[in-house]
Amino acid sequence: MLTCEIVSVGTELLLGDILDTNAQYLSQQLAAMGIAVLHRATVGDNAARLAETVRDALSRSDIVLLTGGLGPTADDLTKEVCADVMGFALERDAQTVEEIRAFFQKRGMPMPESNLKQADLPVGATVFPNSNGTAPGAAMERGGKCVILLPGPPNEMRAMFEQSVQPFLRQKTTGVIVSHTVRTMGIGESALAERVAPLLAGSNPTVAPYAKQGEAMLRITAHADTPQDAEALIEPVLRQIRGTVGEYIYGIDVEDIQHAVVQALRERGLHLATAESCTAGYISKRITEVPGASDVFDCGLVTYSNEMKEKLLSVRHETLQAHGAVSTETAMEMAAGALRVSGADIAVAVTGVAGPGCSEQKSVGLVFIGLADADGVTAVKLETGRTDREYNRYVTASRALHLVWQRLQKM
Amino acid sequence: MLTCEIVSVGTELLLGDILDTNAQYLSQQLAAMGIAVLHRATVGDNAARLAETVRDALSRSDIVLLTGGLGPTADDLTKEVCADVMGFALERDAQTVEEIRAFFQKRGMPMPESNLKQADLPVGATVFPNSNGTAPGAAMERGGKCVILLPGPPNEMRAMFEQSVQPFLRQKTTGVIVSHTVRTMGIGESALAERVAPLLAGSNPTVAPYAKQGEAMLRITAHADTPQDAEALIEPVLRQIRGTVGEYIYGIDVEDIQHAVVQALRERGLHLATAESCTAGYISKRITEVPGASDVFDCGLVTYSNEMKEKLLSVRHETLQAHGAVSTETAMEMAAGALRVSGADIAVAVTGVAGPGCSEQKSVGLVFIGLADADGVTAVKLETGRTDREYNRYVTASRALHLVWQRLQKM
Repeated sequence: MLTCEIVSVGTELLLGDILDTNAQYLSQQLAAMGIAVLHRATVGDNAARLAETVRDALSRSDIVLLTGGLGPTADDLTKEVCADVMGFALERDAQTVEEIRAFFQKRGMPMPESNLKQADLPVGATVFPNSNGTAPGAAMERGGKCVILLPGPPNEMRAMFEQSVQPFLRQKTTGVIVSHTVRTMGIGESALAERVAPLLAGSNPTVAPYAKQGEAMLRITAHADTPQDAEALIEPVLRQIRGTVGEYIYGIDVEDIQHAVVQALRERGLHLATAESCTAGYISKRITEVPGASDVFDCGLVTYSNEMKEKLLSVRHETLQAHGAVSTETAMEMAAGALRVSGADIAVAVTGVAGPGCSEQKSVGLVFIGLADADGVTAVKLETGRTDREYNRYVTASRALHLVWQRLQKM
Repeated sequence: MLTCEIVSVGTELLLGDILDTNAQYLSQQLAAMGIAVLHRATVGDNAARLAETVRDALSRSDIVLLTGGLGPTADDLTKEVCADVMGFALERDAQTVEEIRAFFQKRGMPMPESNLKQADLPVGATVFPNSNGTAPGAAMERGGKCVILLPGPPNEMRAMFEQSVQPFLRQKTTGVIVSHTVRTMGIGESALAERVAPLLAGSNPTVAPYAKQGEAMLRITAHADTPQDAEALIEPVLRQIRGTVGEYIYGIDVEDIQHAVVQALRERGLHLATAESCTAGYISKRITEVPGASDVFDCGLVTYSNEMKEKLLSVRHETLQAHGAVSTETAMEMAAGALRVSGADIAVAVTGVAGPGCSEQKSVGLVFIGLADADGVTAVKLETGRTDREYNRYVTASRALHLVWQRLQKM
């Protein structure tokens, strides 16, 4: 099995200015390809420490994959250091120079001369084009070892990995790792793990429970010679999981709840509308992350103040007076109002206390979600038990989307 | 200056199942304390590799701070490995046993016997209580080196760091690191770096340019005996930066553009409304991330379909027919409509092509942003030059917020 180490380069990482999402993404991708990541490192923009880190990594692993430090500024030196460690010379590449000039021309921006530094490529390396930026990537191979350079900006790094690095690495791997992710909502990670406990001991496939932002998941991973063999190993395990916790599963290998909702709406030819107070657009933002969401989503109303709840959604003044904005009654009237205004088939509304500093005497994390369709209006109460605003908003949006999904299963 | 390395332990990290937010948090905390983090590492639950990583880290740095692997299960071996590396014996601690029993009693849960493993403590170490869990932390000191053990769950780790580890480390540090971040918009990282090039060579303070999701920033960092001395070193550099690229700066040490906008609105006692098509709630979601946004934001309208642009914002049918939804004219009518409907003082509207699959013959990344207030309506055209939907939506929302901020500076 091929071994790989991931090295994230950038002083801003060591200062904690940015969160290293690249390392997680690459870990997932490499694991899925059957490449073992045994070690990850983060170093700053320092030539000596970077060189030492790369040498250490090469002494342990077949492949060293670096992200960051390919930029145009003087402190970007990943390429220079790695070329030196691997004994590759750098030479200015005429075609890359043109591509960089074209990139700036296309945007009508003047090209800083310093950007041409990015056209210096290791002679004899495999070069990976950058479809989202000016810094090309590269793979330097020597003595059975391989150093791969990727840019730091996630959108550039991911596009390059998927378009160029994955095919490049595929030629080196033997066998496949197939993995499926079972996504659930409404059950905690430990409860989920307990329910499927007997399966967690398996080695091929392995079943690993994990939690992410209020969702519990099961990752089933099998290693085999062919995809077919791997699927054959997974199939019975998946059947057992469905049998045990089926009622909590909203999708397998589905990206997230918003993708599940958009798909369910499209299958039924239905349209959704949203009315949001505490999430203030988070639900509509997530729905429209899904390509083609315009087929099933026309409008959302963000009514943050009580006045706007009355004006845009016709929530009754008496309701707000009697029960407050954070109440079952308001959630239901918001949902009904959104359904009326939008002419959609189903409407979801949320009102709650996402973070500290709410005018009403309601506890942080208390949320009411209203659901309206031709059959009527319902509402559910949610208590996150957390005070973290972003977490509460995310989980509230997820739960609202899940309620829509559950309702659609009955339509 | 004290040096520290952070080691994150856990196979789930190397598989990419979870994002390592602990490393970022600790990096920020240590930097703020004037402790230099020159290296971070991530290893799995493997005794040999963990021991090697800890030894390497100790050979380079004064302090090695580990998170994770203090749990009750067999694959949790951070404490055992580090005690061995540092030459400390483990002994079951009666008081900790009681605390663990109490923790489970308090929650009315039966205590798995395996949990008592967490009561085995390194003899002679400083023990840190865990207010959110059962695994205590510890600091083992020997020969001028220090190994600190923290639990993996972020809520346990953070509480322990703030309550116990920070005071513990304060006794060891001399001097402080003060750093300020200059946030700009409308200028690229390399162009920004070129404009302030002479400053990038400085060593105290250092000036480092970096880019994040379409924004270029400058981080100024000074090391001194007192915060006052550090500020005195930074002040002239900051003045030079303002003099060179002042027109692009929207804030210094401000969290992000939405915080700058909410602050600018509050200072002027003004209210903002939004009308979103391609961003579909991303702008209102970001505004309401700021605590107290309700003082300046009442409503937003997400009009994804043309019908809803007409119905909710009174965009004229003829306008949509003649120019299309993605046009200057539509953006302006959307902004005017949002201002009218909301009764706000200023309204921003966006319409564009965030990702592939737009019905109109417009290129992906083409966006129009409308701005309306008592003085009238304006619009600007934005071309991201990217096809990445999430990036385009984020950058569009950022630019829209920046336009609001710029407008407010003149009000």
